[in-house]
Parts: sequence; structure tokens; C-alpha cells
Amino acid sequence: MIDPGIRPQLGIIGGLGPLASADFYFKLTRMTEALRDNEHVPAVILSVPQLPDRTEAILGNHDGPLAPLQAAVATLNALGVACIAMPCNTAHHWYGQLAANSRAEIIHIGDAVMTEIRRSLVRGRIANLATRGTLVSGFYQDKISAAGFEHCLPASNEFQERVDNAIALVKAGSIVEAATETERALHLALLAGADAALLGCTELSVVAASLTDTNGLVVIDSNAALARACLTRLGFGVQEARGLPTVSRLPGHDPLPWRAAQRAS
Amino acid sequence: MIDPGIRPQLGIIGGLGPLASADFYFKLTRMTEALRDNEHVPAVILSVPQLPDRTEAILGNHDGPLAPLQAAVATLNALGVACIAMPCNTAHHWYGQLAANSRAEIIHIGDAVMTEIRRSLVRGRIANLATRGTLVSGFYQDKISAAGFEHCLPASNEFQERVDNAIALVKAGSIVEAATETERALHLALLAGADAALLGCTELSVVAASLTDTNGLVVIDSNAALARACLTRLGFGVQEARGLPTVSRLPGHDPLPWRAAQRAS
Repeated sequence: MIDPGIRPQLGIIGGLGPLASADFYFKLTRMTEALRDNEHVPAVILSVPQLPDRTEAILGNHDGPLAPLQAAVATLNALGVACIAMPCNTAHHWYGQLAANSRAEIIHIGDAVMTEIRRSLVRGRIANLATRGTLVSGFYQDKISAAGFEHCLPASNEFQERVDNAIALVKAGSIVEAATETERALHLALLAGADAALLGCTELSVVAASLTDTNGLVVIDSNAALARACLTRLGFGVQEARGLPTVSRLPGHDPLPWRAAQRAS
Repeated sequence: MIDPGIRPQLGIIGGLGPLASADFYFKLTRMTEALRDNEHVPAVILSVPQLPDRTEAILGNHDGPLAPLQAAVATLNALGVACIAMPCNTAHHWYGQLAANSRAEIIHIGDAVMTEIRRSLVRGRIANLATRGTLVSGFYQDKISAAGFEHCLPASNEFQERVDNAIALVKAGSIVEAATETERALHLALLAGADAALLGCTELSVVAASLTDTNGLVVIDSNAALARACLTRLGFGVQEARGLPTVSRLPGHDPLPWRAAQRAS
């Protein structure tokens, strides 16, 4: 159904959220060892931002996102991709059902993250800055334990509130404010004894390069980890991303108030 | 062939080059008036970086890129998109043949740019920082004249050499160096009497936010113009992009030498 000359190797389920996908595409491109266009991965990004909210579904114990995710997987398979990436951690709650119905390998973001953690640490305590849906799903706790690391969850409610705020702020386009909230969550993770912090929601990957104070923690970016895993899996050379995008505040130029962003969560 | 629940409205032919497409996707997302995922455009980006070089084809008077571009248009039509964007100016050399064989409207980047120019200027002289292919194709000269503006081409060879270098440097991933070359070209445009400078190659859109000195010229970003045109056409609210990505040099972290980048042009 697709001309072999333009067949993509990598399929990406995007739009969950859109800025997180754009960040993934940017990092995938920046991390590819390439000097010319034709040395890059042929890819297709199917951006499906109308997908039902993943965290709401997990907390409400329903599978609303599964059918459209399966449709996206089927479409990418029909386009002939060799493997599929989902730059959305929460959507990996349905990984088993999706992988069972896909010819193309779906690269699990959690496995990519564990590979990335092992590049930085031998052992230690990992705090996960993730959606409540990802935490309830529990796959990160399982993978972290299985790899011999310890899952560190700060006891105070404030930690998760800061993480939720940061995610909502990115979705509302307020990246600088999201970076501030992320830094506050990192500080609480440090106080709780964490050695490393996982940006276990790809919205937070968007702010990764804008963090000015990581409180001395090793910070793992799930989007960058997934990009590295995709390139490695497809046999492309990988380089450290040279100069990831940072976003600075344009004075007087942000029409979205903080409260509106909070309501958008 | 695609589940209506995930059908994209906007089809994007990407990978020409990949960083230019990532920049377009980022700007499209940042410019959408949205607080939540589901307020964004459902879209599909088909990234075809193996497409034959557009400028080589135009200068060599052959149509090598046309067949794969037509295949990409056909694939996006099959996915049910309402309109198609190509964040590559040079590829618009084949716009007529592509539009003639597409149910979905293909939004011409040149028309988007002229709309953007009219937002900033009533009349004046426009220098076009574009590939040699785009200049030989001539569609910008036609559109600029038809709109009552003047096309301003700096006489020295150095101008086009700086532009070519900047484009090659972006393709090789050296954004900071590309910004420096772009600033030199802007200076030559100013000396030649330009009032405005069109970044008429989307590789140069990648450096737009990293330019520190635009020599007082009005700078038109063709990727941003195309993003605005797409959002408007599809009925989405548009806001000025709040904080576009800038890329700063990471000390001692750029393995690509200048000469290698030049060879990649």
C-alpha cells in the first residue's frame, strides 16, 4: 500500500501530547549520527491528540485509549514500519495488548529507560516523575526492582502535585513555568533520598534541557532514552544530542495564566 | 483504510531535511492556541529523508524527486488528510504536478510566506535566503513581484555561499555555526538594500530563534509562515509562538568539523 521508495522504518504514535512528540522527533534527529538528510531514519509520526486521557482511564479502570491505540498500531503496520515507538509513558499501560497485535516490534519506553539508567548508575534509588496513571499501572516499579534498583517515592503529597502541575503546564505550552515546578519536585526527590530522577512522563522531557538546577541528581530523560533505543534497534549511529532546545521566557508574551493551565490537567 | 477515530487532518511531507521538519512540528504545536492535547491538530508526518536532493535535480534539469513526492502525496491522501504541507521550499518546484494529483489541498509555502510578508510590510525589497534550486525554480521571484514587492539579490557570490554553508551546517547538525553564517548573509542582504529577509529554506528556520543579530532586517521564517497557514486553513486558533527553541553550543561537544559539514552540502 506504500511505495517501497518512501517506506518508513520507524513508526511513532504521537500527540500524547503533541509537544512531547515534537521533542522526541527533535531528539531522534539530533541524536542520529548524520551529516546529510539521507543518513536519517525514514519515519512516520501519526499524531493522535484526540486519544482519551490515559491517566483518567487507568484511574477510572477503563480501556478507552486502547481501541484508538490499536488502530494507530494497525495503521503504522500497514505503512510497513519495522518498529514502533510511543513517546508517552502512560500509554505503555496497554503495551501487552498492543504488542500482541503488532507485526512490528513495539519498543517499550520502560526498557529503553532501564538501559539508560544502567549507563549512569550501578545501583541506587530512583524517583519517578510520572503521571498518576503510570504510577498506578506500576510497570516502572516492576522494571526498576527487576534491574536491582530501588523505587523511591517521596512521602509528601506535594511531590506528585508538583509533577502533575509541571505536566499540565507543558500541555498548556508554559515550558518555563513547568521547568520551575519540575525543579521543585526534584528537590523533594532529593530530600526523600533519591540518587536519580526519572522524567517518566515525556511532557517532562520537553523541559529537560531547560532545567537549571537538578539538585545534583542524575536525571534520566525518557524521550531521549527512547530515541537512543530506536536508533540502536534500527542500526543507526547514535551521538549525544548536541544542543537540545531550551525555551526561554519572552517578556510579557505568555497569555496562558497559571490557573488556566492547572484546570487543563 | 484508517479508523475514523484517529484520522489525521494535516499531512506533512517531512525529512527534507529532518531537522527542518522537527522545527515545523514544534512551531505548529507551539503556535496552536491550545491548553490540552485534544485541542491540537491530528496530523501525520511522513518523513522521507532518502528523497533525491532537490537542488541537484533542479540544477541538473531532472525530476528525480517527483515520483517519491507523488508517492508521499498519495499515501497522505490515502490516510484521509484534508490538506498537506511540505516544510521544504525547494520541493515546491514540483508543486503544480503534485497539486494536480492530490485530492487534499497542498498549502503552498510561498503563498504562506507572502501572507506573512504582508503582515510585516506594505512594500519593500525582499532578499531570499534560499537554495540555488529554489532560486532557479523562480517561484518566489514571481510571487514577490506579483504581490508588489521587489526581489533583492545581493550581487556578490559571497551571499549565496554563506546561505549554502548555513543550510549544509544545519543538515550536519551544527546549528550554532549555521546561525553565524546566516547572520553574515543577512548583513550582505542589508548592504544590498534589502528591507526584509526571507528564510526561504526551512533549514534556516531551524536557526531563526538562534539569530542574535538580524541587522535590523525584518526576518520572515518560512516554517512559521507555513504553520500559521495550516492552522488557519484548518480552523485552529493561532498564537504567536511563545518561546521557540534556541540551541546553544555545548562546550567541547560538537564532533562535526566545519569541513565535514561543507562536504555534506
